[in-house]
Amino acid sequence: MRRPDLNQVKEKIEYLAVGSELLTSSYLETNSLLLAERLENLGLKLRYKSVVSDRIEDIVEALKTALHRSYLIFISGGLGPTEDDRTREAVSRVTKLPLVFRSSIIHKIEQRFAARGAKMTPSNRKQAYIIEGSEVLENQNGTAPGLWLETGRNFIALLPGPPFEFKPMAEKLIEEKLAPYRNKYVLRAIIKTTGAGESWVEDRIKSVYRLLPGELELTTLASPGEVQIRLTLPVKEINAQVEEAFNQIKNRIVKLLGPKVFSTEGQSLEEVIGLELSKRRQTLACAESCSGGLLADRITSIAGSSNYFLASLVTYSNKAKNVFLGVPGRLIKEKGAVSREVAEAMAAGTRKKTRANFALAITGIAGPGGGSSKKPVGLVYIGLASQDGIEVTENHFHGNRRQIKFQSTQKALDMLRLKLREA
Amino acid sequence: MRRPDLNQVKEKIEYLAVGSELLTSSYLETNSLLLAERLENLGLKLRYKSVVSDRIEDIVEALKTALHRSYLIFISGGLGPTEDDRTREAVSRVTKLPLVFRSSIIHKIEQRFAARGAKMTPSNRKQAYIIEGSEVLENQNGTAPGLWLETGRNFIALLPGPPFEFKPMAEKLIEEKLAPYRNKYVLRAIIKTTGAGESWVEDRIKSVYRLLPGELELTTLASPGEVQIRLTLPVKEINAQVEEAFNQIKNRIVKLLGPKVFSTEGQSLEEVIGLELSKRRQTLACAESCSGGLLADRITSIAGSSNYFLASLVTYSNKAKNVFLGVPGRLIKEKGAVSREVAEAMAAGTRKKTRANFALAITGIAGPGGGSSKKPVGLVYIGLASQDGIEVTENHFHGNRRQIKFQSTQKALDMLRLKLREA
Repeated sequence: MRRPDLNQVKEKIEYLAVGSELLTSSYLETNSLLLAERLENLGLKLRYKSVVSDRIEDIVEALKTALHRSYLIFISGGLGPTEDDRTREAVSRVTKLPLVFRSSIIHKIEQRFAARGAKMTPSNRKQAYIIEGSEVLENQNGTAPGLWLETGRNFIALLPGPPFEFKPMAEKLIEEKLAPYRNKYVLRAIIKTTGAGESWVEDRIKSVYRLLPGELELTTLASPGEVQIRLTLPVKEINAQVEEAFNQIKNRIVKLLGPKVFSTEGQSLEEVIGLELSKRRQTLACAESCSGGLLADRITSIAGSSNYFLASLVTYSNKAKNVFLGVPGRLIKEKGAVSREVAEAMAAGTRKKTRANFALAITGIAGPGGGSSKKPVGLVYIGLASQDGIEVTENHFHGNRRQIKFQSTQKALDMLRLKLREA
Repeated sequence: MRRPDLNQVKEKIEYLAVGSELLTSSYLETNSLLLAERLENLGLKLRYKSVVSDRIEDIVEALKTALHRSYLIFISGGLGPTEDDRTREAVSRVTKLPLVFRSSIIHKIEQRFAARGAKMTPSNRKQAYIIEGSEVLENQNGTAPGLWLETGRNFIALLPGPPFEFKPMAEKLIEEKLAPYRNKYVLRAIIKTTGAGESWVEDRIKSVYRLLPGELELTTLASPGEVQIRLTLPVKEINAQVEEAFNQIKNRIVKLLGPKVFSTEGQSLEEVIGLELSKRRQTLACAESCSGGLLADRITSIAGSSNYFLASLVTYSNKAKNVFLGVPGRLIKEKGAVSREVAEAMAAGTRKKTRANFALAITGIAGPGGGSSKKPVGLVYIGLASQDGIEVTENHFHGNRRQIKFQSTQKALDMLRLKLREA
């Protein structure tokens, strides 16, 4: 069989998921993530992905478009035994290659049923029809075999839809049909920043744009509390010289963004802080009001966080702030639970009670209710207590309850990160 | 403006997501779920969905295909201020409608920046260009306005990509442009259960399957700690008779599943509990070890939770369990921090210190490390203290760290729910 020329295929790979359920609000197509990852490892990319219903005319229409604009097409779904499963038929119709019966497939399916003490249903017979000239791909986890097919212009892979069937088959196929012929490798970096908006970041790094080699791809990605810059450079081979050139670009961007950068390897803020605290054998404790436990949840999402994380006192009520953190009731009454002074007292109380090296405290208004003109929704005070004393920041966050909670924790973690940089 | 004819539009709605990042292994397009759900509420369906890169020629190609095969097209992404953002340009090219500058948009963007004490960057100017003849859709959560556009044959909606911008704009658009003209209505129910696996649920409700009217769709959806049954029935009009017939089916299923059902209206467990505690004017406090704040985070995700939620003591270290909850150090030493006895002492200590009506306590091993043959990863003890005394359950959860944390909180909330049912 002809083998795919990866230079030609490179920019023309497409994924097509077949299944009416994938067009409803209940299901999300996820096979393409796995596919994209395996292709990225070879310096390849998906150019398009689409989802179509089970209707044969829709599959035919989508297939025609795909075969026209792409070179290699991965199709998943519609290979099952039921009447809805019409992918084979659609491919046969578009490629004008007939479906032929393979008794060896029927035997495998029968054996599969027998091994489970069951009998094959008549509808499974359908799965023994393959596109003439195609190679049969074995399915360890289900009855539907996959197919690999070459036409004059295209390569087509037909794979089953269920992720646990799709995954091993797609991996094996890429390993066998594409990996041996790769001539490109990929260098990657993910630079993560916090404390600046997307436009600030873009304006800041504008000056390097024109210095970038043509092949290098730079994309920025913003979400509340975080802006990422992703660098991807496909290379013929990986050697010291190429790596150095790539690192120079990366370092240049990192330098322009200064202390807003918290990671150059894609880590989360809680990972970065965890690594630093572990290294120093120092400890952290928190007090949370409006963030409601999200700060602790993020910190404890890191395996091994019990080495440095002692406690978070989620003191939602005023009384709990008094009982557990020793915040004077009088202070809360005078200044309000959402105030610089209470944030300070919460941080100090947490550090004292837990004897942690660092204590973070968050108090604010996550909304949607509870705001006033003087203290609007999104106002959040964050305190950080350490051996050097206590600092408190006043923040004004925007968004819904979840986003305000998240940004509060992001800012708190970032205050600690910057503190750890100092020392 | 011409209004969409929903009879004509019905089967010809398509979604196109623009963004190279959505073709990588790092991001999954999720806007289409929200879109599908809102359309389903009107008895409408997505026929195709696709993802294309930021390249203008790819957007143009995908748009041509979409405009040809569909009637109403929702496009998201590529409306930002950067050079990658080329959706407006692509739509202009395909529809042959020019881009025109709208100074009113620039003023809104300037105001948005000013409200945050920042200055608009020059690149945002680009966002003030709209397709001639289109209607501007306001974006409450970002700088990119949306557009609604009618051509000879098609309706096109341009919406921003970030989900928190996309969601409210898509909802408003559907409400204004489509909902008033519907001639189909949909009855839906989401029955949520916890404490049972998918096959148990399916076996249990098997007997109603053959009683279902042909139009009714029943799907089950399982995730760790939760199995949902979704019922959808499209009807010509909603009236008492139709509703009663639908409710009969729903109630029959609910009855078969018994107390495993915690909601028939799609609420989360934390919502159900919040409503119940609010109604009774009772309070809740928690102590968390392995769940690490996730229980508090879930409870406080509900607006108004400060009315019943007092505190969660995330006592990760043994010492914190002693200092904040009064768990004797000796007990921890003898029985281990992950034990029935410590869960009991944590629940009792929390209830005593906070004077809450109910106290939940979680201690376990979330993994991946920390397990042993006697106490494996996934072993979690959960205590519930109330005026009736303390009950503790021993649980064995499976999955990764996140899934074990989640299932622990799900079980804890469910223990409280069942307790509240009793009384």
